[in-house]
Amino acid sequence: MKLIPYNLVNLKSGFFFDKEELNRKTTINAVYDRFTETGRIGSFKHGYPEKDPVQPHYFWDSDVAKWMEGAAYILANHPDPALEARVDEIVEDIAEHQHEDGYFNIFFTVVQPENRWANRDWHELYCAGHLMEAAVAYAEATGKTKFLSCMEKYADYIAKVFMEDHAAAFDTPGHVEIELALVRLYRHTGNQRYLDLAAYFINTRGTENDRNRVAYNQSHLPVREQTEAVGHSVRAVYLYTGMAYLAAETGDESLISACKTLWEDTTHRKMYVTGGLGSTYIGEAFTTPFDLPPDQAYTETCAGIALCFFAKAMLALENKAEYADVIERALYNGVLSGLSADGAQFFYENPLEINLSERFTSVWGARRFPAHRRVACFGCSCCPPNINRLLPTLGGYVYGLEGDTLYINQFADSDMTDGNVTAAISTAYPNDGRVTVTATGVSKLAIRVPAWCDTYTLNKAYTLTDGYAVVDNDGTPVILTLDLTPRKVWADSRVLRAAGQAAVMKGPVVYCAEGVDNGEGELHNYILPADITAAETPCESCNLPNLTVNCLKRVADEGGLYRNTPPKTEAATLKLIPYHAFANREETDMRVWFLSE
Amino acid sequence: MKLIPYNLVNLKSGFFFDKEELNRKTTINAVYDRFTETGRIGSFKHGYPEKDPVQPHYFWDSDVAKWMEGAAYILANHPDPALEARVDEIVEDIAEHQHEDGYFNIFFTVVQPENRWANRDWHELYCAGHLMEAAVAYAEATGKTKFLSCMEKYADYIAKVFMEDHAAAFDTPGHVEIELALVRLYRHTGNQRYLDLAAYFINTRGTENDRNRVAYNQSHLPVREQTEAVGHSVRAVYLYTGMAYLAAETGDESLISACKTLWEDTTHRKMYVTGGLGSTYIGEAFTTPFDLPPDQAYTETCAGIALCFFAKAMLALENKAEYADVIERALYNGVLSGLSADGAQFFYENPLEINLSERFTSVWGARRFPAHRRVACFGCSCCPPNINRLLPTLGGYVYGLEGDTLYINQFADSDMTDGNVTAAISTAYPNDGRVTVTATGVSKLAIRVPAWCDTYTLNKAYTLTDGYAVVDNDGTPVILTLDLTPRKVWADSRVLRAAGQAAVMKGPVVYCAEGVDNGEGELHNYILPADITAAETPCESCNLPNLTVNCLKRVADEGGLYRNTPPKTEAATLKLIPYHAFANREETDMRVWFLSE
Repeated sequence: MKLIPYNLVNLKSGFFFDKEELNRKTTINAVYDRFTETGRIGSFKHGYPEKDPVQPHYFWDSDVAKWMEGAAYILANHPDPALEARVDEIVEDIAEHQHEDGYFNIFFTVVQPENRWANRDWHELYCAGHLMEAAVAYAEATGKTKFLSCMEKYADYIAKVFMEDHAAAFDTPGHVEIELALVRLYRHTGNQRYLDLAAYFINTRGTENDRNRVAYNQSHLPVREQTEAVGHSVRAVYLYTGMAYLAAETGDESLISACKTLWEDTTHRKMYVTGGLGSTYIGEAFTTPFDLPPDQAYTETCAGIALCFFAKAMLALENKAEYADVIERALYNGVLSGLSADGAQFFYENPLEINLSERFTSVWGARRFPAHRRVACFGCSCCPPNINRLLPTLGGYVYGLEGDTLYINQFADSDMTDGNVTAAISTAYPNDGRVTVTATGVSKLAIRVPAWCDTYTLNKAYTLTDGYAVVDNDGTPVILTLDLTPRKVWADSRVLRAAGQAAVMKGPVVYCAEGVDNGEGELHNYILPADITAAETPCESCNLPNLTVNCLKRVADEGGLYRNTPPKTEAATLKLIPYHAFANREETDMRVWFLSE
Repeated sequence: MKLIPYNLVNLKSGFFFDKEELNRKTTINAVYDRFTETGRIGSFKHGYPEKDPVQPHYFWDSDVAKWMEGAAYILANHPDPALEARVDEIVEDIAEHQHEDGYFNIFFTVVQPENRWANRDWHELYCAGHLMEAAVAYAEATGKTKFLSCMEKYADYIAKVFMEDHAAAFDTPGHVEIELALVRLYRHTGNQRYLDLAAYFINTRGTENDRNRVAYNQSHLPVREQTEAVGHSVRAVYLYTGMAYLAAETGDESLISACKTLWEDTTHRKMYVTGGLGSTYIGEAFTTPFDLPPDQAYTETCAGIALCFFAKAMLALENKAEYADVIERALYNGVLSGLSADGAQFFYENPLEINLSERFTSVWGARRFPAHRRVACFGCSCCPPNINRLLPTLGGYVYGLEGDTLYINQFADSDMTDGNVTAAISTAYPNDGRVTVTATGVSKLAIRVPAWCDTYTLNKAYTLTDGYAVVDNDGTPVILTLDLTPRKVWADSRVLRAAGQAAVMKGPVVYCAEGVDNGEGELHNYILPADITAAETPCESCNLPNLTVNCLKRVADEGGLYRNTPPKTEAATLKLIPYHAFANREETDMRVWFLSE
């Protein structure tokens, strides 16, 4: 299907709308301010004298590029001269300091000019890719082409260096990203050279022509021979996204097949219930199938965002609701946990369990756990601007079109117009399960029935095809009603660290408990009953409800450290909040997986 | 009570006897051979030229001293001229190379003579303490006094340096040990100066007169103000043992009170079900109360041995079966897991859970887990010779005497004579619950009723006092019959990492399952039934039975990674082996705590 782009979709209310607005009003400026304070924005002036103690880092270009891309998406639907001026000033800097040959990289111009293209791991091509994405987005949003021209020139130069002259000390990127960016550049400009370069990088990767092949950056095997998601999870999923983009242009069945295999390994064996990816901080990486420790989850925000990109690319290849299901899981949970309720603080890692009592530290060091408090900026601050560029495009995940069928992939209160096709969704989802869809200009509506939903009704006759309820469209409202009763969710038996436990979800929303509501050092003692009954109350930090579940709780007693009878239990209530809203109050325990009867 | 010393007790058969014999026939020689190969034994020749690439380490003296102490205990009950000659040769080396002033330390004589008494953390006093313990043991075992004389001279010198001249760069040991050794030296020689020095070190520790006070080595507070077991677990429990030794000599109530408080924190809040101590490799340390992660257990073999010493010292202070219960827990489980079935391989750490699938490694490093295979020798090889010196003295844990009451603390097939008191225990414990005790020369018998035992019978009228069944002794057999039916055991609800789980014990023996018997990657899926019924089969590597328990097992199914129904279960049998016998076959998963209905 063709996903209807974000700029043709008008979000009107609800979860996606609120997050989009939060980004537009707060987050985009908060990130800009932090990037100014830390020297990132200023570094585009190339004013750093040699030996200055504060030097641009070699991935700063990409941090700012993602912010620019986010700003561009905002400008597309919400003109804002001040914001546009900020972007333009950076564009001027880029144009001024771009080398004659087309090269642009602050670090390798100001700090280590002698090391251009010397080290695969120094993120030059990654930075270039993000700049290209930003340039395309900015041209699409504003019609201005200066930035785009700079990046076309840069892409031409990269094509010469890598594809023709083989003049660099490496052959393909250490941090994949430019591949998908080049496909976007091709799509916008129509210049075949950029698609060829994307194909060159993807097809060379992991072959004998690719020096220093390692699993860490997914160059251990030719991409079509890769069957397991391994290594750095963000790099991995950007690669898979690039592969899917390329396959969409070329129709290459072997590449599509590899994408499907990698999708399955990623989402059927290596994805947290929150949609998070990456089970270890060691290399920020995937580990082994079903290895999903909640307290040691790395689950970088960027990896969750990358998963949305990959899923969207797969959905464009194949009209299967499974891809939209994964997008929904990530967006409502492990991606937006990366952003604070106030829109100005960020998680890089998104753990699924915090036990403050285990965060032991001594003169010999500390146990390593994910950060449990959001911060305003990171040394490697990729995640905040990635949120900047995701949130304005949430509308682009909602509608799809193929032939005379309009696909409803996400349930967001919205409307859209694309040529002679118009559609509107009216819903308070995920607070309410009623989704009303009206459309004109198409003869069929295909409305996703989420795989998590066991009980639903439609007001019209339908056939279920690949997870979509397909109905004939006569212009009258089609009403899908999903049962959103809070439910228990279990993991596959192979997930060691969820054994004997269950989570609570309402619709797509994963819930968690915090110590501040339920007692510090106590969350492991709550036992969910066989069938839960949940009362709903308003959440302090989002427009989704909190839940209160009656359950049992194991209590400390005088039975001794080890005893022949189990700890006593008593009736208790467990207060749950949406997972993505955790850590918005004081430092506290948190838990997603609970003991279960 | 007075514990009847090991050399007056004759073990005849059973678990303790087998381990004592294994040590005498295999382990003592295996450690000697490894210590010879690694240069430890030879280092006593002081022949290392400056700049030799292999240099004595500053704790090598203690490694060999513990071996010597073990050899001495063996010689006491089993004359062995070859073994005695090995000890004598080392004693000759010590006598030859001891300094005029009494100092003896290989590293600080050969390698860094300029740094004598320069750094608290360099284990000089720790090495001295172990040499003193060995010297006392050797004098008691053989009547030879050369070694003892050397160590008296050394102790006199240390007293002058620390207690009189305050001439060292520190005030009390970084690694506690010498305190308890000095009390032993005092008890053997009657020289008050050694008791005074022990008291000086203990009473100075953590006070304003003790420089560089840190919790890591338990010098953060004066010992009488310490209420929590913190820091390096071996150092901690050696300190507590020294405090109890000193209190036994002085009757100091404030010191006894501190010992009881630290005992309670150690054994009621920070002890694994196996008797292991130390929840983290970070500083080899205690952490927080009830923090007992099975897969990350450090539980150093030496800490378990130290716990036996501490418990024995407390038992000498107070006739409470609780102390003997802890000794039993440690000896049958977390201490003897440190030794392989063949008697020649050792664990330093003794984990309670091994999941090979989680032992992720990459170019960026590996997840840190305890070693899961025993080895013949360690760089820091304190544990093997600590086993050497523990096993020949197991008989010393069995009997106690106070007034006209003979205490039976452990159930080992044995007899003993101490003056006009004779006693014998006839039992196949812990394979059989029948323990027959006969004694002469005492009017009462106090037989421990283990706290783990809910059901037992005696063939005579008894009163239960502090965990002992006290009966009048008329010389006829007193028969205690303990119910050894395998049972489930639970941890206090505050033990996060045992939540929802139970272990299986038979009498004092903790059981575990290995992947090789039950499937790799499967141990977390077995669910113990509410009431277990266990069939017994012989264990391949010890004289205790294996158990087979009918249970449920969660199985992989097509329900998806996350689903609204729990994983399917099927009937299964779980094969359990005694915990201490784990890792005697191939590399495999292992688990103590199981899901439980």
